[in-house]
Amino acid sequence: MLRLSGERLTVVYRIRADSEAEAHARARDVCYEQTVEVPEDLPMREDIRAHVVGRIERLGPIGPAAFEAVISYAVEVVGPELPQLLNVVFGNVSLKHGIRVEAIEFPDGLLRHFRGPRFGLTGLREALGVWGRPLLGTALKPMGISPREMAELAYEMARAGIDLIKDDHGIADPPFCPFRERVPRCVEAVERANRETGRRAIYLPNVTAPADRVFERAELARRAGAGGLLLSPGLTGLDTLRALAGDDSIALPLMAHPAFLGGFLGSPESGIAPGVLLGQLLRLAGADATIFPNYGGRFAAFTREVCRAIAEATVRPMGSVRPIFPVPAGGMTLERVPEMVGVYGTEAVFLIGGALLRQRHRLAEAVRELYRAMGVPGPSA
Amino acid sequence: MLRLSGERLTVVYRIRADSEAEAHARARDVCYEQTVEVPEDLPMREDIRAHVVGRIERLGPIGPAAFEAVISYAVEVVGPELPQLLNVVFGNVSLKHGIRVEAIEFPDGLLRHFRGPRFGLTGLREALGVWGRPLLGTALKPMGISPREMAELAYEMARAGIDLIKDDHGIADPPFCPFRERVPRCVEAVERANRETGRRAIYLPNVTAPADRVFERAELARRAGAGGLLLSPGLTGLDTLRALAGDDSIALPLMAHPAFLGGFLGSPESGIAPGVLLGQLLRLAGADATIFPNYGGRFAAFTREVCRAIAEATVRPMGSVRPIFPVPAGGMTLERVPEMVGVYGTEAVFLIGGALLRQRHRLAEAVRELYRAMGVPGPSA
Repeated sequence: MLRLSGERLTVVYRIRADSEAEAHARARDVCYEQTVEVPEDLPMREDIRAHVVGRIERLGPIGPAAFEAVISYAVEVVGPELPQLLNVVFGNVSLKHGIRVEAIEFPDGLLRHFRGPRFGLTGLREALGVWGRPLLGTALKPMGISPREMAELAYEMARAGIDLIKDDHGIADPPFCPFRERVPRCVEAVERANRETGRRAIYLPNVTAPADRVFERAELARRAGAGGLLLSPGLTGLDTLRALAGDDSIALPLMAHPAFLGGFLGSPESGIAPGVLLGQLLRLAGADATIFPNYGGRFAAFTREVCRAIAEATVRPMGSVRPIFPVPAGGMTLERVPEMVGVYGTEAVFLIGGALLRQRHRLAEAVRELYRAMGVPGPSA
Repeated sequence: MLRLSGERLTVVYRIRADSEAEAHARARDVCYEQTVEVPEDLPMREDIRAHVVGRIERLGPIGPAAFEAVISYAVEVVGPELPQLLNVVFGNVSLKHGIRVEAIEFPDGLLRHFRGPRFGLTGLREALGVWGRPLLGTALKPMGISPREMAELAYEMARAGIDLIKDDHGIADPPFCPFRERVPRCVEAVERANRETGRRAIYLPNVTAPADRVFERAELARRAGAGGLLLSPGLTGLDTLRALAGDDSIALPLMAHPAFLGGFLGSPESGIAPGVLLGQLLRLAGADATIFPNYGGRFAAFTREVCRAIAEATVRPMGSVRPIFPVPAGGMTLERVPEMVGVYGTEAVFLIGGALLRQRHRLAEAVRELYRAMGVPGPSA
């Protein structure tokens, strides 16, 4: 006889169906598919059917041929491991058409197994010593430049007043810009700028790497003096982010990049809502800041509403899991900064790549304009 | 000045566009987005523009508002690490609408960095000592049963003539069926059956686990005597599969389960073609057998053509990367076996879960019928 706590994880699915009856059948299918994975009519111990099989809590229409099913799962079926949590939420049903994860509610009994972000909003601000304004970030690119050129760019960005200076996510360990060479150079460049400005900009090298190398690179970066790390959990697996955030010997702020995760965001009828995936789940996994394509940029699927939902998920109460920074990015221009402040407020990182490179000949001036656009005095140095 | 080998990875993208001009603009955007990630008009070193930026090799219409763009990338930009390969193929463009990966061609200069499957088709047959017929697999379920009940089921399945007996992919390490307890029990049960039958059925425990536990569980399984392992690379990250396949101290056949990977398969206009993701990429990563939903089962998106494409990708020449087993699964019934043999031939694993559980009271007889349906004599014992 199973003895379970009674605590349950709740998932809201959007289900495509032509009738309430079909929606109900599909929702029941989700309950079985995500747990016992046998046909409903198969003989089964009664306690398993009662406690292990998912449970429909609510079901109702939300639009033409669209229903919302609220389904709960016993915490013991789901947790406390992140891969299994992802599996129960969306493992097999990801393979079915017309089922989308719209929301997840985590019970405390599950949340207490997750440490979440080590720094979060407040911790990252403390590390930088910056309060009362959005943070500014940029990416070191284009791929193809040498470690020396990259370090020079990092220096210029830190000197001009950028707070978070990250590797471009596409630069992992290419032969023309090896990790081991560029990381100490860029750290040194940003430290040199910091000595000159009195500020505390940080460099975040990209530790997205093979499964057996991520921690080695993170440790190299930490020893070199990097102030944070960049990871693409879509490429490494989300749990690698969790393991990295939980590693007390690394203990650096983590910025998550959404590369490859777009696979889950390609259709309004399937996949996982961006607020859940890039907001809730990456936060649960331990990102201190989550990058996502800003609306009006070059990623058309990310509307203002989608971006707001992601930002909202970064701060929504979630047990003891800290709030984190939303990081709108992708084709951000200097002119849009006032609008961005209106949408995201001050608790955001504005990640500006190409537009700053375009102003490289007058970078200090361009960044002063950014500060003015945020309604704050320019960088102090 | 960049010195590159000239070898290139080729990716075929399906691009939604209303005109040839728009298709061309979108294809150029892919070339920049996936590499240098800066606007095309930004000043850039000429050797970077010539060698790092992706290159459109061909572009043409393939249907209404649909174009096929063949884009190549320098091997030095792509490899030799799997996360970076995934990033170049689909990292940022995964976040854009209407771009789908239809095919990948790997040059030898890239393939030689990948060991691929350790066993493959032939190695797995050698381990089992079974030739000339499809293999039979099953899953131990439903979730909620105890290790003792699970071992009993494993025994019955091995006794009846099933070759590959795996954990249900949803059973990782739940409190009611802990990994440490169930694995030795199931190994022992299958070994006992093997002693009685003279055959060599194997048990494959599910090592899908947190990033820092996968290898620990795999090692536990190996020491307990497991004959193979089950992993869901969508939950752990694809590179964890590669690392596991490459680990000489584990060295067990690996079966990959597609849980969560459906996120990439939800739309014909976005994501990654199933043959590429579940066939080519999981094979490159080192799966010896790749599970996918069989057509006509409970996963409607998997048509006969999709399943054929996956099966084809498991055996297509790919440098020194071994051919592997396609494993159609999901709602497979005994009656469909002759049809399956027609579609997949003998080089496949038929994974039959619920339908065998339904016949548990007459399992030996049901499996003899399966053998007959495959056109071979029943199991020897």
